Amino acid sequence: MASFRTVKGFRDFFPRECALRNYVTDTWRAAARRCGFLEYEAPVIESTDLYRKKSGDEITSQLFCFEDKAQREIALRPEVTPSLARMATARQRDFKKPLKWFQIGSCFRYEEPQEGRTREFIQFNADILGDASPGADAELIALAVEVMLDFGLQREDFRIRLSNREIWNQFLRDQGVADEHAPAFLQIVDKIERAKPEETAARLTAIGLQLEVVRDFMAGTDESHPAFTDLRVDLTARGLWDCVKIDASIVRGLAYYTGTVFEVFDVRHGLRAVAGGGRYDRLCALISDGGVDMPAAGFAMGDVVLGILLSKTPSAQARLTDYLNAAQGVDVYVVVADEAQRAPALAAVQALRRAGVKTDYSMAPQKVNKQFQAAENQNARFAVVFGAEYPQVMVKNLVSREQSEVAAEAVVTSVQSALAEPLRGPLLA
Amino acid sequence: MASFRTVKGFRDFFPRECALRNYVTDTWRAAARRCGFLEYEAPVIESTDLYRKKSGDEITSQLFCFEDKAQREIALRPEVTPSLARMATARQRDFKKPLKWFQIGSCFRYEEPQEGRTREFIQFNADILGDASPGADAELIALAVEVMLDFGLQREDFRIRLSNREIWNQFLRDQGVADEHAPAFLQIVDKIERAKPEETAARLTAIGLQLEVVRDFMAGTDESHPAFTDLRVDLTARGLWDCVKIDASIVRGLAYYTGTVFEVFDVRHGLRAVAGGGRYDRLCALISDGGVDMPAAGFAMGDVVLGILLSKTPSAQARLTDYLNAAQGVDVYVVVADEAQRAPALAAVQALRRAGVKTDYSMAPQKVNKQFQAAENQNARFAVVFGAEYPQVMVKNLVSREQSEVAAEAVVTSVQSALAEPLRGPLLA
Repeated sequence: MASFRTVKGFRDFFPRECALRNYVTDTWRAAARRCGFLEYEAPVIESTDLYRKKSGDEITSQLFCFEDKAQREIALRPEVTPSLARMATARQRDFKKPLKWFQIGSCFRYEEPQEGRTREFIQFNADILGDASPGADAELIALAVEVMLDFGLQREDFRIRLSNREIWNQFLRDQGVADEHAPAFLQIVDKIERAKPEETAARLTAIGLQLEVVRDFMAGTDESHPAFTDLRVDLTARGLWDCVKIDASIVRGLAYYTGTVFEVFDVRHGLRAVAGGGRYDRLCALISDGGVDMPAAGFAMGDVVLGILLSKTPSAQARLTDYLNAAQGVDVYVVVADEAQRAPALAAVQALRRAGVKTDYSMAPQKVNKQFQAAENQNARFAVVFGAEYPQVMVKNLVSREQSEVAAEAVVTSVQSALAEPLRGPLLA
Repeated sequence: MASFRTVKGFRDFFPRECALRNYVTDTWRAAARRCGFLEYEAPVIESTDLYRKKSGDEITSQLFCFEDKAQREIALRPEVTPSLARMATARQRDFKKPLKWFQIGSCFRYEEPQEGRTREFIQFNADILGDASPGADAELIALAVEVMLDFGLQREDFRIRLSNREIWNQFLRDQGVADEHAPAFLQIVDKIERAKPEETAARLTAIGLQLEVVRDFMAGTDESHPAFTDLRVDLTARGLWDCVKIDASIVRGLAYYTGTVFEVFDVRHGLRAVAGGGRYDRLCALISDGGVDMPAAGFAMGDVVLGILLSKTPSAQARLTDYLNAAQGVDVYVVVADEAQRAPALAAVQALRRAGVKTDYSMAPQKVNKQFQAAENQNARFAVVFGAEYPQVMVKNLVSREQSEVAAEAVVTSVQSALAEPLRGPLLA
């Protein structure tokens, strides 16, 4: 019957879906803060040029872009990194380097919706600017691992696939391939596992390379390659190197990466990458027209593939369920058993909330059993009943079914001390 | 030097501004949950028609709207209420009534930026659907007050200006003005305090009314009007009626309001309304083409005027400062005084974070005094120093300047117990 629908590729977050979203964003935020990252946010709209020139073809072909009423060409952000480079370079004197910054918010890509892809998605971005050391790359990988563990995933559930674009640049130089072919070559490698071998071979031949040579080089690239030495030492010290797998086919689609690149994949379900990132040392100079040269690295994790992975992983589900239950409920439901006592009942609602107690009640007159039903639906631990006995009121523990009569004026203190006791009864069963 | 800027009317949130935003959104969220509201979120993009037909002229003239690549007419949401009505009516069978729902997110209006107005702003929406009682209107006003108090504002700092559109509808009937003039009339009343009297008089004359009669009626409308009786009883029981001032000039610009309307104003600084809302009993039927008839009421509070008010109110500033300090800092800074000990230092960083301790360190080799400086900049309470004494390490309390040597393997437990102690020393000064 409804005459309006969501726009294609966009999502409604009803309370359950919204609590799930909050669980994801809260978990990201807590992990990033624990690792010393500071939160920032960029506008969801930027000049189209910011993406057109910087992000590369794949992303700009998927832009939600339009003209505003003053004929400005603007776009819904497809990613946050160009905005971060704009912001950090504009005010780089105001902040001590290195910057460890993170961001959480929506991004938009005009691509065909399918499993794991929506036109709007929520992304977590973590970046380190002003530190060119491999230690910064390691810190980002450590944060990515930290996040996965915080979601209740086990080390065996995921793998960081690691590579370095410099390895391929060196390979191209060794093979005598001109620099101008590097972007096209990286696109071929990016798709090498999904594209048909004949097509890949043909595209490689066009720039003077043989598929077999590329494949052999990929197979021969392992953790002994000097590009990985510093990262291996750092991540081994943290006990995280066994989460990493060298994989030369990882190059990342975006044009701006320069060194280390990595993606996080689940191990059991063959899903798309959960997260990806790397080093992009030239983007700040590019965005600031050479004004500020600042090394940088970062990664992004979206909510969509992650959500699918969490739904398929029992150890992750347990945490999620605890969070959802806590988000939905109230502590106390005030029952107006006698409408003549609505005024003191409202005063109690007000006082309980002021004291920090999550409290609900029926706004309109309602049968008593319906009010108790509502209390149960909202997982209330206590009901406070205002009836004919007023100024005495009944405090019922809805878990243990114990009840006691207290003076109405003592409701807040008795509820607070009751809430401080550990849960007993059926809820623990 | 930077070649890119924010699009006109959009905002960058650097870490300090982002922490301020989080303070506002966290405070909204906590108050709404305490009052038994559940969070939802709607898409930031909807069909333009959803607004064109439902919100009225003032908002649709300020739409950020465009065509996507499939020629769909879509718009950045200028408000969330039409989306809420779309969502609630589409799935109304799935939820027990009344729905008490809240939402926090960005909205967009293409209007000239000025103090208190940006083209993108963050809004808090709280709504009750499926309850036509005045008790639901009172609950919304109580939540608005709760939010203001949670921000550290005093009761004397703000006022709820309350009216009811039915009062004006009755007035128009009494004056023999045709129903079709009601929308134009309400627009005139909405601007009566800001527009020139001559212009207002002329516009009223056009629909057969005299300015003096309207003014007299406004002046004569007070809390004795029967439209306010139930609300007065409810809010008096909660001890909140003294926060309310009857003001018949409050009608709200949006077309869809039907009964109670209110706005929240600061008392001292003459700012624009901090929040506003009311009852909109016909919107759900309109949005669902008559499919679902559901009474509804709600209010919205934006972050921009609120932010100005908080910045001008000392009692509000104190809470804000506490929040900002807590958001910026870490608990522990791990100092690598001897690069030979970087590996165990990294292991300690990892273990501390896993144990929930906010921990930072220098990713690249760095002079020891620079590392202590960084620890101070990040408000670290403790430094853990890995030097030549390893496997002994030094735990320094950066507040009291006390220090003690512990075994590296005991770092996590000794830091955790030290953090559990109350703060002493200069930070409390």
